[in-house]
Amino acid sequence: MVRIAIDAMGGDHAPIAVVRGAEAASAEGAGELVLVGDEGKIGPLLTRRSGIEIVHAPSVVEMKESPSTALRRKRDSSISKAFSLLKEGDVQAVVSAGNSGAALAFAIFTLGRIPGVERPAILTIHPNVKGTKSILLDAGGTVDCRPSHLVQFAIMGSVFARHVLGVEAPRVGILSNGEEETKGNELTRETHALLLNAGLNYTGYVEGTDLYNGMADVVVTDGFVGNVVLKVSEGMAEAIVGILKEKIARSTRAKIGYKLMAGVFKTLFRMVDYSEYGGAPLVGVDGVCVICHGKSNERAIKNAIMQAKGFVGKNVNGHIKDAMAVSLARNKES
Amino acid sequence: MVRIAIDAMGGDHAPIAVVRGAEAASAEGAGELVLVGDEGKIGPLLTRRSGIEIVHAPSVVEMKESPSTALRRKRDSSISKAFSLLKEGDVQAVVSAGNSGAALAFAIFTLGRIPGVERPAILTIHPNVKGTKSILLDAGGTVDCRPSHLVQFAIMGSVFARHVLGVEAPRVGILSNGEEETKGNELTRETHALLLNAGLNYTGYVEGTDLYNGMADVVVTDGFVGNVVLKVSEGMAEAIVGILKEKIARSTRAKIGYKLMAGVFKTLFRMVDYSEYGGAPLVGVDGVCVICHGKSNERAIKNAIMQAKGFVGKNVNGHIKDAMAVSLARNKES
Repeated sequence: MVRIAIDAMGGDHAPIAVVRGAEAASAEGAGELVLVGDEGKIGPLLTRRSGIEIVHAPSVVEMKESPSTALRRKRDSSISKAFSLLKEGDVQAVVSAGNSGAALAFAIFTLGRIPGVERPAILTIHPNVKGTKSILLDAGGTVDCRPSHLVQFAIMGSVFARHVLGVEAPRVGILSNGEEETKGNELTRETHALLLNAGLNYTGYVEGTDLYNGMADVVVTDGFVGNVVLKVSEGMAEAIVGILKEKIARSTRAKIGYKLMAGVFKTLFRMVDYSEYGGAPLVGVDGVCVICHGKSNERAIKNAIMQAKGFVGKNVNGHIKDAMAVSLARNKES
Repeated sequence: MVRIAIDAMGGDHAPIAVVRGAEAASAEGAGELVLVGDEGKIGPLLTRRSGIEIVHAPSVVEMKESPSTALRRKRDSSISKAFSLLKEGDVQAVVSAGNSGAALAFAIFTLGRIPGVERPAILTIHPNVKGTKSILLDAGGTVDCRPSHLVQFAIMGSVFARHVLGVEAPRVGILSNGEEETKGNELTRETHALLLNAGLNYTGYVEGTDLYNGMADVVVTDGFVGNVVLKVSEGMAEAIVGILKEKIARSTRAKIGYKLMAGVFKTLFRMVDYSEYGGAPLVGVDGVCVICHGKSNERAIKNAIMQAKGFVGKNVNGHIKDAMAVSLARNKES
């Protein structure tokens, strides 16, 4: 039985959205769930006790708090305690919608990195026009990256594409400002040279459009660019949905049309709705950790918990460890 | 009367799409148009002679050709000749859908930079959910940027927002991976320090979402990130439109709904259609230059020519020169 710790105090709508999300996940068979946080606040909200327990943590890392300060002063926080449970082997995964910088800091501090991984990355999954999915990493874990970091991201992303998305030989691309080798910046050029000999299905530079046209399974970039890409995508999707809704509300004719197209819109809105995906796995630390959007609602939390269960079931962390061990051996040989 | 040179040989659909676009612009009152390129190829295509003339240029810069090679070997190309006409004062603007790197190289070489501008930038205009528009620069002109370049982009973008979009005190933001000052990378942090004292309405870091929510009028970033942002936006818009069209085609019910919502979709598709905007001005070189998407159709070319006419009419280049002179004086004082 999978056992998952959830930071009950993390996120804009915590603890209520987290508690409700956990209850929904529990009802869907997520396994044993551990809500970590202020018992006095969580307890009264809980309507379903079966399969859900509470582990008390007296403090909370605020959303705007500096990760380094939190790491020094909030060892008794819900996020810190959740990772301790994972480190001790009491749970197999952590889910948090709290301060993502702090989650990252506590994850590294508590779990440590997988041998061969210099920096962890946040991995996001994007639906594309081909009906498949593309992986982007790093979406914000490591802002300043060296070429070796991007190579490690490519290895971890490939493992993910293979074991989670079921892609046999994931095509890996470096995000650049053009496909030609003459394009790119210092980081992409040095990474390009390394990826040619990394034993991956590396296909060269890809452009921003390739994230949504299905031309690449794994797109690597530094955490600064990746975060910008993620948020531009989010902003554009919100703008399109917002404009559609506003225009529809203004016309009776359009309202009727909307009803007839309900199925189409449902597909579209689900595609661009972050809560559909739940969260983004933090890869490279030694343990399964899913980081959720700060504004996560009940549905997002539920899906993140189901995701975490899936990653544990597919032994993603073990496969990453194996792949990194192979990479380390390869680097020693060369 | 405005006179505009158009690189008739540039773009995936040249020369036919360019010739048709120029004819359409001419019919809309674009002024005097000069089609630059192979007379033997352009002449037979031209159905409208009034207001359109041809200036012969024997060679063409291919789309995949290296800009530096083109600059050395293709002095008799259509793009080179177009900029020469601008430099000589025969025309007031250049429009090209050709190799954008080569256009940039010839623009800098032929026109030179505006005093105070170290590097030119490609400026793109993005509609947002508030119904206003936000400016992004650099969308790919200068890949490796120093903080001073970004400050110059901010000044030029502000001039553009004021004189083209009619925003009195344009809010300027630096694109970053978070709003907090603790976020960002070396480039954003140094630029932040400079922009605090640049005499602009600088509002701090902005995130990717802010490009589409109307929170900033001018968003500055380096040409690598800007190009990725532009192409991610393009890719996502294409994916959303593609998925909508595919789902609609599969259902009679949805097809009827689509017809009832025709007005709404028209607005949406126009918003995300690059050809609606025509092209992107290259700012910082001493002359009006509009760079179009390589896949530009007749409509995109027409709109780019009308855009160029507007930039000339509003004396955008003159206003940028004035603003840069003020900035140079300010820097000397401090």
